[in-house]
Amino acid sequence: MTTSKPISIQSMLLSRRDLEFVLYELLHVDTLTTRPRYADHTRETFDAAIDVTAKIAEEQFATHNKKIDQNEPTFDGKRVMIIPEVKAALDAYCSAGLMAAAHDYELGGMQLPYVVTQACFAHINAANIATAAYPLLTTANANLINAWGSEEQKATYLPHLLSGRFFGTMCLTETQAGSSLADTRTRAEPQPDGGYRLYGSKMWISAGEHELSENIVHLVLAKIPGSPPGVKGISLFIAPKYLVHPDGSLGERNDISLAGLNHKMGYRGTVNTVLNFGEKGGAIASLVGKPNAGLAYMFHMMNEARIGVGLGAVMLGYTGYLHALDYARKRPQGRPASGKDPLQPQIPIVGHADVRRMLLAQKAYVEGGLALGLYCALLVDEQRTAESQDARREAGLLLDVLTPIAKAWPSQWCLEANSLAIQVHGGYGYSREYNVEQFYRDNRLNPIHEGTNGIQAIDLLGRKVGMEGGAALQVLERAIAHSARQARACPSPELQRFGEQLTAAFARVTEVTQKYQAARDRAYAQTALANAHVFLEMAGHVTVAWIWLRQALVAETRLARVESPDADFYRGKLQACRYFFRWELPKTEHWHRLLNEPDSTCEDMQDEWF
Amino acid sequence: MTTSKPISIQSMLLSRRDLEFVLYELLHVDTLTTRPRYADHTRETFDAAIDVTAKIAEEQFATHNKKIDQNEPTFDGKRVMIIPEVKAALDAYCSAGLMAAAHDYELGGMQLPYVVTQACFAHINAANIATAAYPLLTTANANLINAWGSEEQKATYLPHLLSGRFFGTMCLTETQAGSSLADTRTRAEPQPDGGYRLYGSKMWISAGEHELSENIVHLVLAKIPGSPPGVKGISLFIAPKYLVHPDGSLGERNDISLAGLNHKMGYRGTVNTVLNFGEKGGAIASLVGKPNAGLAYMFHMMNEARIGVGLGAVMLGYTGYLHALDYARKRPQGRPASGKDPLQPQIPIVGHADVRRMLLAQKAYVEGGLALGLYCALLVDEQRTAESQDARREAGLLLDVLTPIAKAWPSQWCLEANSLAIQVHGGYGYSREYNVEQFYRDNRLNPIHEGTNGIQAIDLLGRKVGMEGGAALQVLERAIAHSARQARACPSPELQRFGEQLTAAFARVTEVTQKYQAARDRAYAQTALANAHVFLEMAGHVTVAWIWLRQALVAETRLARVESPDADFYRGKLQACRYFFRWELPKTEHWHRLLNEPDSTCEDMQDEWF
Repeated sequence: MTTSKPISIQSMLLSRRDLEFVLYELLHVDTLTTRPRYADHTRETFDAAIDVTAKIAEEQFATHNKKIDQNEPTFDGKRVMIIPEVKAALDAYCSAGLMAAAHDYELGGMQLPYVVTQACFAHINAANIATAAYPLLTTANANLINAWGSEEQKATYLPHLLSGRFFGTMCLTETQAGSSLADTRTRAEPQPDGGYRLYGSKMWISAGEHELSENIVHLVLAKIPGSPPGVKGISLFIAPKYLVHPDGSLGERNDISLAGLNHKMGYRGTVNTVLNFGEKGGAIASLVGKPNAGLAYMFHMMNEARIGVGLGAVMLGYTGYLHALDYARKRPQGRPASGKDPLQPQIPIVGHADVRRMLLAQKAYVEGGLALGLYCALLVDEQRTAESQDARREAGLLLDVLTPIAKAWPSQWCLEANSLAIQVHGGYGYSREYNVEQFYRDNRLNPIHEGTNGIQAIDLLGRKVGMEGGAALQVLERAIAHSARQARACPSPELQRFGEQLTAAFARVTEVTQKYQAARDRAYAQTALANAHVFLEMAGHVTVAWIWLRQALVAETRLARVESPDADFYRGKLQACRYFFRWELPKTEHWHRLLNEPDSTCEDMQDEWF
Repeated sequence: MTTSKPISIQSMLLSRRDLEFVLYELLHVDTLTTRPRYADHTRETFDAAIDVTAKIAEEQFATHNKKIDQNEPTFDGKRVMIIPEVKAALDAYCSAGLMAAAHDYELGGMQLPYVVTQACFAHINAANIATAAYPLLTTANANLINAWGSEEQKATYLPHLLSGRFFGTMCLTETQAGSSLADTRTRAEPQPDGGYRLYGSKMWISAGEHELSENIVHLVLAKIPGSPPGVKGISLFIAPKYLVHPDGSLGERNDISLAGLNHKMGYRGTVNTVLNFGEKGGAIASLVGKPNAGLAYMFHMMNEARIGVGLGAVMLGYTGYLHALDYARKRPQGRPASGKDPLQPQIPIVGHADVRRMLLAQKAYVEGGLALGLYCALLVDEQRTAESQDARREAGLLLDVLTPIAKAWPSQWCLEANSLAIQVHGGYGYSREYNVEQFYRDNRLNPIHEGTNGIQAIDLLGRKVGMEGGAALQVLERAIAHSARQARACPSPELQRFGEQLTAAFARVTEVTQKYQAARDRAYAQTALANAHVFLEMAGHVTVAWIWLRQALVAETRLARVESPDADFYRGKLQACRYFFRWELPKTEHWHRLLNEPDSTCEDMQDEWF
């Protein structure tokens, strides 16, 4: 039986009690230690990594979150200036070895399960999403080189990326090619030495120029002349800011220049750049893997990148929720609805039903989002290390179908949580003296980047639910049916009922999917795909309802055996599950009708009618 | 038959065609000219006022909207500094006589109907909501003094407020008294000369200190010692920044000092202050009306103030929609779902169904919100000038019940429109180089100020629907039934069906209301009131569905008689109505279930379970 450790300071980043519930009571992440890859680990080593990261997050990242928002990076034409706290925090992060947390021992890594590294990184995200972007991108960059780079490329870059000596970027977008990578124009000219030179301009490149690390390793999508048009002709290149000698020392500066900085509503601390490649003869670059396979390599990393963005959105919502809860408990205002005697003292606003509604909605969104994100992260581990090939394949399929949801759902609903956190604070929440308005501004990016939520919707309905003959959706169906059976077998009539409601709601997802698959290329499919956004909303809410039912089943079992404060924790889980099933899941009925008919209102709208 | 005037520049503030549709085709505002008060007016004089304001909005307000956001007012300890464009714009506004647009000729006013002044001011709101706050507050201030001030007070302040020589504020909130005005602590000590001196501190005071006008007239809520506790002991005072001599010249500075500026997420151009009254002996003030009636006076102005906030929210959404539409028509990205040949040129994103969904939703929210707001503004005129006392009373009742909706609905859904406008822009929308992120930040204030939306919800369910034995709701019911009858009698089967759906949806509103009224002080009522927010959402969506049906009925009639581009305009109205009935109105079924049961999930939630 797990009990929570006493925590000296009530964290405003995330609830450690909740995190331990998700990791160990819901997902049983400690059982991963039976796998050969994690054999040296124990729950204690997992917790130690979380402790270290939480401490760095609290002491180094959270402490400059507001300052970097108010003092964003500047460019004087030569150098990018960033307040020193950013480098100090990142140095602490790298010194603790966290950049390589998931990597092999032989690469200097900790060989931690992916899910544990995500539990660690959740603290960094909550503390300072803008500074978190540097390690996020560097890790993604290192993973890609590790997976697809040549031995020489790995030797040249990987140790330095994993130590934090080099940071990384992802250079995909161009001004004319955002959601449409098919229109990439950056050109990669083959050179006599077997290398390439890049010519072109990249837009919205986070961490594209700075002096936080000794070098910056750009991963760049570009087209080799003569390649097929569209996405089939895109290749992936490594182009470092400074060339790297075989001994790891730095050579001359590459032909990559900073054209300017972009300034955003939030994420202000992440330097965001326009980069020009090849203005002075060509940026020296090396091809990763084979020509024209660049997008495939990127897509192989996509699940993790999208789960990462989803968890970022969750954590902004989560820290906002904790701020709102703290405020609601401390802020006296008004009197109970039952007795408004002005001679009585004011009560804390958590005593008002509408404030509790806003807090409970936040709790349902952010704790649901965290459990979903960490569950998906566990699937990454399962896909890699599960004992049977079948189990790995199943985990991979589940991951494929859940990824668009794990990215889009939190970026919509945990943003809504941030809005509710402002509302709980009233005028103070709208003021820059408090923290919640920044979380709201920061989180508004997440529905946009790493594939807009509209792109996620098309990915889900147009690709994922039908992949391998619908195999992914079938795996999800079996997993949900398993939980529904557990609910039917549990002693609580309420959870039994929720199990039935979940089964019915998921049946609506499969009904639409089957109609869509059967109708491919006909009118129904076209209209349904036009409403893909609604499908993503429906599938997302059904999935999170499932995640909440699973949490409630654990809580129900534990509740019989514990006393306060753990009993209160489990009661909170049950109440949030109730909220989700009563207030949120019913929304899917309306969405289902729009898809099942399907409704063609938006498809029919003509440009000239606006 | 009305046709639109050719508009030389496509306005990004609002659609003149839509405004004229609402004013003249939907609301028949030109018929107000038969009333004695407006006898000198014609449609042409109404349009001329709109033209003048639109021009000032475009040329003076919109032009510094981004600049003031990026260069907010500062305080050096002595003076508040504001970029000069703000004063230039306000001077132009005042010089055009717009501050007194609704006031009597003898006060130097234009004696325009309130609805026309709101149609004018809509442009100012859309152009620059932060600079708009100065005239908004000054007008509200002048209206209050005009309604409740003594002849001496009127003579001293009114001409200068209406000319723009003086600006005004509303000093209600204190740190410990935001939503709970009962806890006002500012003290008003009677003086031997019959005047008062004020002592206390006021928080969140917009336009509290600046040099944009010669003087600032503060309307201040304060308590006279010995008054009853709570809201029954609050009085209203006038306290000017500079004392005013009988001849209108300024005397010495009053004891009102600026303690500091508040800095917000949006509305950055509106200087927002903490004001200290009476630190050096007491701020000289005069009582408005009778002691202890201060809140009643404020509440008499509340409908207009709240409709004004609602229209501000609408216009932020509206200009964001026009920006998004313009962007979607010009931005090429991707190819049609039907053929993704990368050799074909990219299409403008308005061609993608999901982008049309986001634009159509915005159109439905902002045009629905504008029609609702202007309809409520017309009710203000009806309440004052309708020919019979019965008609005036009916208009007043309708206004009372619609006001919380006219404030809260746009502040929720037109904020959502701003979020969609960002999403249409993708990464560019999140960048501060474009305008839509500012609209989103600005609009997030509107659910908070002028009574939070939670307060509006309690006002609607707890007070308005039951007032005078349910008379207000009955008037609304008759008005909706009238439209439903029109729909049933129209030739379009679709509009007939929408009429039936509206009737059914409104019946759900009355069902809940009746149960609530019948159960007063019992469990149902308590739980329903805890869910008042849901009631406000339901009533709001039903009301806006009604507004859309009314627009569609007009459009359907006209469509038979016109050719493009007017035909396209009417088709757009019909499609937006369809969107609202198919995509939005069904949401009310779920909300109804939460209220009808009623669901007690949020009420049951305990503090210690969070």
